[in-house]
Amino acid sequence: MATLDIKKGRVEMIHGSGGRASQDLLEQLFLPLLDNPWLNQRNDQAVFDLPPGRVVMATDGHVVSPLFFPGGDIGSLAVHGTLNDLAMAGARPCYLSAGFILEEGFPLADLHRLVASMAEAARKAGTPIVTGDTKVVEKGKGDGVFITTSGVGVVPEGCRLSGDQARPGDAILVSGSIGDHGVTLLSLRESLGFETEICSDSQALHRLVEVMLEVSPGLRGLRDPTRGGLATCLNELAQQSGVGMQIDERQLPVRETVRAACEFLGLDPLYSANEGKLVAICPAKEAPALLQAMRGHPQGEEAAIIGQVTRDPQNLVQMQTRLGGQRIIDWLQGDQLPRIC
Amino acid sequence: MATLDIKKGRVEMIHGSGGRASQDLLEQLFLPLLDNPWLNQRNDQAVFDLPPGRVVMATDGHVVSPLFFPGGDIGSLAVHGTLNDLAMAGARPCYLSAGFILEEGFPLADLHRLVASMAEAARKAGTPIVTGDTKVVEKGKGDGVFITTSGVGVVPEGCRLSGDQARPGDAILVSGSIGDHGVTLLSLRESLGFETEICSDSQALHRLVEVMLEVSPGLRGLRDPTRGGLATCLNELAQQSGVGMQIDERQLPVRETVRAACEFLGLDPLYSANEGKLVAICPAKEAPALLQAMRGHPQGEEAAIIGQVTRDPQNLVQMQTRLGGQRIIDWLQGDQLPRIC
Repeated sequence: MATLDIKKGRVEMIHGSGGRASQDLLEQLFLPLLDNPWLNQRNDQAVFDLPPGRVVMATDGHVVSPLFFPGGDIGSLAVHGTLNDLAMAGARPCYLSAGFILEEGFPLADLHRLVASMAEAARKAGTPIVTGDTKVVEKGKGDGVFITTSGVGVVPEGCRLSGDQARPGDAILVSGSIGDHGVTLLSLRESLGFETEICSDSQALHRLVEVMLEVSPGLRGLRDPTRGGLATCLNELAQQSGVGMQIDERQLPVRETVRAACEFLGLDPLYSANEGKLVAICPAKEAPALLQAMRGHPQGEEAAIIGQVTRDPQNLVQMQTRLGGQRIIDWLQGDQLPRIC
Repeated sequence: MATLDIKKGRVEMIHGSGGRASQDLLEQLFLPLLDNPWLNQRNDQAVFDLPPGRVVMATDGHVVSPLFFPGGDIGSLAVHGTLNDLAMAGARPCYLSAGFILEEGFPLADLHRLVASMAEAARKAGTPIVTGDTKVVEKGKGDGVFITTSGVGVVPEGCRLSGDQARPGDAILVSGSIGDHGVTLLSLRESLGFETEICSDSQALHRLVEVMLEVSPGLRGLRDPTRGGLATCLNELAQQSGVGMQIDERQLPVRETVRAACEFLGLDPLYSANEGKLVAICPAKEAPALLQAMRGHPQGEEAAIIGQVTRDPQNLVQMQTRLGGQRIIDWLQGDQLPRIC
């Protein structure tokens, strides 16, 4: 066994060999930080019992650049991203896995920092990272670190959320201000300085979802508006359900700084990524109680009813603008913000 | 919707945007090939029922270079890799997920070919790829394609395989010839031409494991000797269980071509990766029946008893050589074969 120099050392190709050096990295960096009985058992897989119910599985690759940003880093983002994909099915997340692709030369201090951040995010959410894998690629064949997380969870009896169940007349809600994550990242990349006032909304939403399921038995579907932002998310839901959507710009929660940064950057908050918000579709009659419950939860304080589902064979998403006009909110066409998550 | 030019097109940054172009890639390439009800539902996660039993989860990143090789490609390898990690716990694999990290400029024809290969491998194994994710990184920030697969399976009642249960006196078996995958890849990279006679052993082993569990109720543990080869695998098991191991070189199944290629390349088949073989530890009295059952299965025809577990506080793996000497089989120290899986 060689002692890793976590302060000044770097990832080397031998750390991906599967041999002694791989073990050193595992034993001296990953295991002490992620510490849990499954991982400590040192098998190539984890075995566990799940509570009764239907099982949910999700996976998400993370290639965000830069790796560290106000409000989070690729480590916490990779945990929240998969937790939220599970939560959007109404699931209680139970266990996570993580696959790392490291670039030769990546500082071990940075790896340590972001694995510590993953560990903290996983601990807060109550979902241990029970199995994982590490690969190393040559310098110039990767970009620091990519992390793919997967997760399994369990859906409570009777819960059948899906994106294809929106019906005309349903209400559309968002859980809080939109665009924060995307705008923070872009401002940081362009060194615009807005990021001193705004930060990523990266957070796990499963506890908010739990509360929502209690008050809205008819809840149709949930989705987190990540890449492509709220606009893309609504278009996906409209297409899946074969409906249209009508939203009201005046009801959209957008932070003033985000609005200002968007104007400066030529962005639209509707298309800017979120990493800790959700869109909910529910029967109109359940919307007031759902809204109230969301606002009573720390992750939903700025929740709003933003519109309703319409009958539309073209599955258009339309928005009544602040000035009273109608605007079609199309799919994101280009690539507004590459590598945002 | 734009029609993808799968023959001549390339991966572009917008395919990772989450917007219209991402949908096009999903609808025109991934969905038709991987076709199954979960994926076709277009949610960000999959919901399913699992048969009763303890649940197993595994994950494996794949960065193999080159992407296509005799006997497989990164697509089939990514399916077999995770299936085998599940099978080594004695599990029946049930569902898979796949996360793709694509490099800008990667030919869509190659992507199509390797996703088709994944689909075929998944179909053969009876384990659909039910959820997934695609990210795109700039040219020069990746290397064609990396694939991280995860899987869940279920362990039959009473089965408690683990790498920490080897006991002095136990028999050590391998399911077939060793070193094929690693040597094939290295020969290909160095353009040595051996790869016309040998090929990767990449294959799913869960059906072989099923047969083994039937005949060896006392089976202690299984592990697939991938990166770092048989030598590393035995060292891991010895360390986990706090035992030593004694193997016999004359019993090791090694193909003649692999032996010749190893001599030429200065490699040791003991340290060369396998992607379709397993090591089994079982009580000595169950070994003959286990060996017979393995040899009766297409994936275990060349199985052999290669040695036994010893009492050794230093957890050494030792080998009696062909010439009768004793050699310590240490952990892989350097990086014999980078990016082998």
